[in-house]
Amino acid sequence: MPQLRIALAQVNPRVGDLAGNADLVVEWSRKAAESGAHVVAFPEMVLTGYPVEDLALRHSFAQASRAAVDELAERLADLGCGELLAVVGYLDRDEAGVRNAAAIIHRGQVVARYAKHHLPNYGVFDEYRYFVPGSKLPIVRLHGTDIGFVICEDIWQDGGPIAALGQAAVDLVVCINGSPYERNKDDVRAKLVASRAAEAGAPIAYVNMVGGQDELVFDGDSLVIDAQGELLARAPQFVEHLLVLDLDLPAGQGTSVEPIDGFDVTRVTLESAELPGYEPLPAPAPAEPLSDCAEVWGALVTGLRDYVHKNGFRSVILGLSGGIDSAVVASIAVDALGADGVYGVSMPSSYSSEHSRSDAALTASLTGLHYETQPIGDMVKVYVDQLGLTGLAEENIQARCRGMLLMARSNADGHLVLATGNKTELAVGYSTIYGDAVGGFAPIKDVPKTLVWELARWRNAEAARRGEAGPIPENSITKPPSAELRPGQVDADSLPDYELLDRVLDQYVEADHGYADLLAGGFDPALIERVVLMVDRAEYKRRQYPPGTKISLKAFGRDRRLPITNAWREHTPIPV
Amino acid sequence: MPQLRIALAQVNPRVGDLAGNADLVVEWSRKAAESGAHVVAFPEMVLTGYPVEDLALRHSFAQASRAAVDELAERLADLGCGELLAVVGYLDRDEAGVRNAAAIIHRGQVVARYAKHHLPNYGVFDEYRYFVPGSKLPIVRLHGTDIGFVICEDIWQDGGPIAALGQAAVDLVVCINGSPYERNKDDVRAKLVASRAAEAGAPIAYVNMVGGQDELVFDGDSLVIDAQGELLARAPQFVEHLLVLDLDLPAGQGTSVEPIDGFDVTRVTLESAELPGYEPLPAPAPAEPLSDCAEVWGALVTGLRDYVHKNGFRSVILGLSGGIDSAVVASIAVDALGADGVYGVSMPSSYSSEHSRSDAALTASLTGLHYETQPIGDMVKVYVDQLGLTGLAEENIQARCRGMLLMARSNADGHLVLATGNKTELAVGYSTIYGDAVGGFAPIKDVPKTLVWELARWRNAEAARRGEAGPIPENSITKPPSAELRPGQVDADSLPDYELLDRVLDQYVEADHGYADLLAGGFDPALIERVVLMVDRAEYKRRQYPPGTKISLKAFGRDRRLPITNAWREHTPIPV
Repeated sequence: MPQLRIALAQVNPRVGDLAGNADLVVEWSRKAAESGAHVVAFPEMVLTGYPVEDLALRHSFAQASRAAVDELAERLADLGCGELLAVVGYLDRDEAGVRNAAAIIHRGQVVARYAKHHLPNYGVFDEYRYFVPGSKLPIVRLHGTDIGFVICEDIWQDGGPIAALGQAAVDLVVCINGSPYERNKDDVRAKLVASRAAEAGAPIAYVNMVGGQDELVFDGDSLVIDAQGELLARAPQFVEHLLVLDLDLPAGQGTSVEPIDGFDVTRVTLESAELPGYEPLPAPAPAEPLSDCAEVWGALVTGLRDYVHKNGFRSVILGLSGGIDSAVVASIAVDALGADGVYGVSMPSSYSSEHSRSDAALTASLTGLHYETQPIGDMVKVYVDQLGLTGLAEENIQARCRGMLLMARSNADGHLVLATGNKTELAVGYSTIYGDAVGGFAPIKDVPKTLVWELARWRNAEAARRGEAGPIPENSITKPPSAELRPGQVDADSLPDYELLDRVLDQYVEADHGYADLLAGGFDPALIERVVLMVDRAEYKRRQYPPGTKISLKAFGRDRRLPITNAWREHTPIPV
Repeated sequence: MPQLRIALAQVNPRVGDLAGNADLVVEWSRKAAESGAHVVAFPEMVLTGYPVEDLALRHSFAQASRAAVDELAERLADLGCGELLAVVGYLDRDEAGVRNAAAIIHRGQVVARYAKHHLPNYGVFDEYRYFVPGSKLPIVRLHGTDIGFVICEDIWQDGGPIAALGQAAVDLVVCINGSPYERNKDDVRAKLVASRAAEAGAPIAYVNMVGGQDELVFDGDSLVIDAQGELLARAPQFVEHLLVLDLDLPAGQGTSVEPIDGFDVTRVTLESAELPGYEPLPAPAPAEPLSDCAEVWGALVTGLRDYVHKNGFRSVILGLSGGIDSAVVASIAVDALGADGVYGVSMPSSYSSEHSRSDAALTASLTGLHYETQPIGDMVKVYVDQLGLTGLAEENIQARCRGMLLMARSNADGHLVLATGNKTELAVGYSTIYGDAVGGFAPIKDVPKTLVWELARWRNAEAARRGEAGPIPENSITKPPSAELRPGQVDADSLPDYELLDRVLDQYVEADHGYADLLAGGFDPALIERVVLMVDRAEYKRRQYPPGTKISLKAFGRDRRLPITNAWREHTPIPV
């Protein structure tokens, strides 16, 4: 049986940086060559980064991407990696339109090109907007075995290229991906790859991107599963990794170039002879799956780190209120950037409690971040006196004076401002626009309040496991949450109990259930109306909220699009 | 020849307001019946409003839309409008998915349903995300003549239902639309309808929506054009209107229900007998086309008015700097809401010139809006002294203190805050986030600076033509623009000449030309690099900008999607 050593390069490209991404491909191709690999596969659109959104429509960009592939092929050969078969995702353009494509590179040439067939157009994906689907099926014979290629969504929809590759009797399928992280998606993904490997009758080598790109984070989790469903190798999540594996494959026997199910089949023979037998490497131990909290934490840390770095920042600044949200955001930021890259500011007002000040200071000392105190009393007083503010206007001006203070520090010192609001607040509009919503990035905007608490407890327990002090003050975790914008205010004055609220939101937002479904789910009618009305009214605030890493399917923002001036109500609204 | 009186109801629905929109359809159906019409046609998705975006994916909403159509059919019959054939756009859902559909209603029943075949998925449209395409072609015989139906994009793409209706030999095509306004689109639209009428071999009765919905404004411009290309009737832009017209049509002769080009043909006979001959109404005089400036002004006024009202506001507040942008926005707001609904605040700092204060006051007195002065010196001083701000941080805090002041007034008095920035500023990032970018709506965010001046001159000339005083101070039009955030500052310190800048932006943004194209266009290389770099860097600010009415094809925002952490550069960037 032919032997083949494959390397899956789980790397972190940067959108638009064709030169930098080409260097990344060269660097990891050399690592693959040094490990003796015969095939190296890179993620979907690694050369352009992913998703490129409307950059795909710019002719000059598509042209530059095509040119970069040709140049890359020559460079790899010049550097002595020409024998390696490199599978590289890029943006292609031909007379029919723009393609999400893979270049198959060998000995300095692009020997075949595959264009993604199934284009996702839901959730965060808009690929019908950008790409035309491919219907060509190139099959490459290398060292005596036949290799086929697919891209990401091609395995998430039934029919199409996987079934066709099965009919064409390929011996190995290389699947390149830009598959964004979602909570618990890793389990779904492994099962899916196994079922498609069975359908193709061949192992699937699945390589995924890693790293943060705006609101998306790619978790890696590259894997190889054979046609019998056996997991042969699995890379860790959230880190760059080269997964190298030796495979024994059937000898390539296909010769037909008859079309299959609308696909044009082409066959390219690079090396028809098997390699001389060699001693395979020991199979790498599959990465241990992460716990739910560890996985979410990893996504949030990765998303924040890459947003900061890819935007050219070195440090972040945030308000420390002594509450749970800012303590968790500070801890994520310190894990992402190191304590030296994080600046915390306590901004007490006359309504701030003693524990707010002491818990903020404790967060700083537990994490080691830079800390200062800037009271907002004088700023607020000018506004309140000059404009005669009371009530909501007086509450909001406090949050806004804090936001302006952080932005002033950002302008003066170059830090990126982090907003500390959570998903529950954002869903129901319990935040001040231009106040606590100020910032360039909102690390926990997709994390419900109850999960914020859970993550805090998990992070402290992790520290304890390692014999370290937990970064999050226990009192921040246990005390009742409060915005402290008027005397004695607590969140419970304005919102239902968070456990109950998050359950309703999960049904109404994530599961898209309507009023009748929620009622059937046993929730109190008055509670449903109250929550639904708050959610339906908060659309404008959500649009103005800074980006933040998505960890769930129906996160707010680009993947949930609602008109602002929307008058639809699930039920008769409570009069206001 | 059979006679038929058709009425095109160019109305302004509200997204999500099923009950309100049903009332609107009933009200205008009665008007049509009173005018003796036999057919009344309403815009695309009139019952749900358009575009509904992700509301389309909510089962409870689609269910409610279907129920609303059935109820509407009964109501129309109960009110004595049952003999009228009503064509009503709505959201349908069947086993295959969600449809953008038209219900054809007669005598209390939905006698046929047509689902949009061509789904637009570019620019502001995302219809592949929401809808499945229709492939059924119902043809209705009424008073002896055969009527076919299409929806909006069906006439913008070649092939499909128009060609099929031509083969089926229909005598009239009713085309219902939600076609957003773009500058100069009315000319394109009339030519297109004429060419499709020739293709169908029958007159097309084209009814379009009117009014603002978030960033879109629908301009109406409903029209009827016959197969020879003759314009039979045309409604005015930007107002609700019932266009009533008598037609002499061929007698219906089609009987075949053989499929045509993949469309299932069904024929419904409601009344096979011709009507007794009657005296036709005189043909209505076609609406006079508006001048370019009048059309843009109409779009901006309509967009602002509907955004304010559909969001439940009654009044707006804005900063008056004495400059051209705030003077034009004030004037649009007064035209949209009346002077009593507009509040202007002059917010001078120590850097504000004497003419800024006097021009702001003059804008107020020329338009009659409510006016107050609130100096920002005390607020700015607290920040500058407490944080030791200098340079850019000191410039920005001034703009931010103004933004906070307007938001405090909004909280206290319930006005919607208007941001006064123009498209040129926004394109190059020449604005302060959380400062002059503060607001719920940005009326001129899609208007380039040079067009702002042109509109100002046009609006004053219009006033003069009517014997009124122009609303915009001449000095605001003629003086050099300045942000006045430091002594002696003018825009020309930071930006190229606006005439030149707008020409480059038009090429780079609207036409999507790359560096090489711009160079070939004769622009100075240093100028191109400077502008392109500014534009590429301003993406984050653009995402945070408030919505505003679109008047051009490639307006920023939802219809131009770029990653924030994008490293693509058209050319070697100038080092910073």
